[in-house]
Amino acid sequence: MKLVTFTRNGTLAIGALDGEEVIDFTALDVPRDMLGFIAAGEAALEAVKQGAGAAPRHPLASVTLIAPIPRPHRNIMCVGKNYHAHATEFAQSGFDASAAEDIPAHPVIFSKLPSTVSNPGDPIDVSLDPTGSVDYEGELAVVIGTGGRGITKADALGHVYGYTIVNDVTSRELQKKHRQWLIGKSLDGFCPMGPTLVTADEVPDPTALQLITDVNGERRQDAPVSDLIFDIPTLIETLSAGITLEAGDIIATGTAAGVGIGFTPPKYLKAGDRVAITIEPIGRLENPVVA
Amino acid sequence: MKLVTFTRNGTLAIGALDGEEVIDFTALDVPRDMLGFIAAGEAALEAVKQGAGAAPRHPLASVTLIAPIPRPHRNIMCVGKNYHAHATEFAQSGFDASAAEDIPAHPVIFSKLPSTVSNPGDPIDVSLDPTGSVDYEGELAVVIGTGGRGITKADALGHVYGYTIVNDVTSRELQKKHRQWLIGKSLDGFCPMGPTLVTADEVPDPTALQLITDVNGERRQDAPVSDLIFDIPTLIETLSAGITLEAGDIIATGTAAGVGIGFTPPKYLKAGDRVAITIEPIGRLENPVVA
Repeated sequence: MKLVTFTRNGTLAIGALDGEEVIDFTALDVPRDMLGFIAAGEAALEAVKQGAGAAPRHPLASVTLIAPIPRPHRNIMCVGKNYHAHATEFAQSGFDASAAEDIPAHPVIFSKLPSTVSNPGDPIDVSLDPTGSVDYEGELAVVIGTGGRGITKADALGHVYGYTIVNDVTSRELQKKHRQWLIGKSLDGFCPMGPTLVTADEVPDPTALQLITDVNGERRQDAPVSDLIFDIPTLIETLSAGITLEAGDIIATGTAAGVGIGFTPPKYLKAGDRVAITIEPIGRLENPVVA
Repeated sequence: MKLVTFTRNGTLAIGALDGEEVIDFTALDVPRDMLGFIAAGEAALEAVKQGAGAAPRHPLASVTLIAPIPRPHRNIMCVGKNYHAHATEFAQSGFDASAAEDIPAHPVIFSKLPSTVSNPGDPIDVSLDPTGSVDYEGELAVVIGTGGRGITKADALGHVYGYTIVNDVTSRELQKKHRQWLIGKSLDGFCPMGPTLVTADEVPDPTALQLITDVNGERRQDAPVSDLIFDIPTLIETLSAGITLEAGDIIATGTAAGVGIGFTPPKYLKAGDRVAITIEPIGRLENPVVA
């Protein structure tokens, strides 16, 4: 199921995208917000499958899709340098003192504040970064369903509720000057998310997904998720070793080669640009850049 | 006012500590949880001042004080290496490749998950860290009242709702091996908080506060908050430059010299230890260590 959060005539609702229509869950006996719906697990999914036939449908063009999880209940957990070619381009950019080939031995985990989340089509405001070094990072994001601690790699995919797309927008200079990355990664609206949250049953093998980012129609990132240095089961096992994962947690799995800082000179975002990240079957997450 | 969150006969409530009694806000016309109460601002504080005389009082011994904000609405924002002597001891410990005197030029900001928050008296479970390198960090924490973006240093203290104590418990080896500090700082229960949240009107000059940490009665940390490298107004100005601060946000301002890793060999926490952090007038935050 391609779950969506949307507004229609000013009202917020959740539902499912079916072709060019949105099935509206409002009248069904399920929680009305995505975090509550996820926490309700299989029972809620079963209820909407049973009720979908009778639920109202809206033309996609009559609604506005917003981020599937508009306000996460805690920071988004993110993985740094998790594609080989990206780790190399990052090292070669001179960003830090690491060697030219810098492949982390363990996952590099940081976070983005919930207030970074913005919607498909929302502007990315580069004026928030006085250093003029705002970069895009297309990423596959994993949403946790059943939480827990001490989840093994073998069991990990059973804890995945579904998948969405995030743009881990980053101020490169703020990322660098504060050493730890929270500020550089957490400016307001610096995490566009969406357009859908595809449930795990429709993604039997997440490594088969392809991550594509276009800026102004120019292809910048094009990598298979199978290129991840630390795959999704490893990330879930690593995080949950001492941290109880919770329903609705979001793990952004890292970005591929082709970010702006990887070019010489860097191709940072500027007003008028358009960034589009595509991962099928999740869809295309497109945002304009303003200043 | 010394605000507290407490349980009594199994019921969660908020109130104020007055000597050896707790004034119970339950019957007053104010939000019943601390985050709601903080968001209600001056009006709620005024309402409890008016109503305090008629509100029930419980002997302190009849209630259990829990963390003032038991579940923050997003990650706690934390400052690394923010006391000169601590930055030096940290550098000299060989933790990273930084120079022997490593004073950051800009605030180092990372975060702790909301699930790290635990209560006064709750055990710190060092078995969650397989590397056996759990350390304490006594810290003054600032709670934001009126949020906003672009808050200047001159206005910053007007946005402070109050102050509490946190123990920024850390696995040194996990902190190091994952490079970014989220995992090493976010194991379950690794942020004891409390015992009170003292409103800003009772702390006219936070730099006059003294931070003291004892482990098993041995004094380990004893530093004035005036030793902060980046003071509270600077932290608020830096964070809010591109991030809208929100009511209830928690900023842990950094720890002083005397953490376990600063000793040779390191004095990491082990089962049976007791860590007590004292900052008057907030009180004493004491937690046992278990494994």
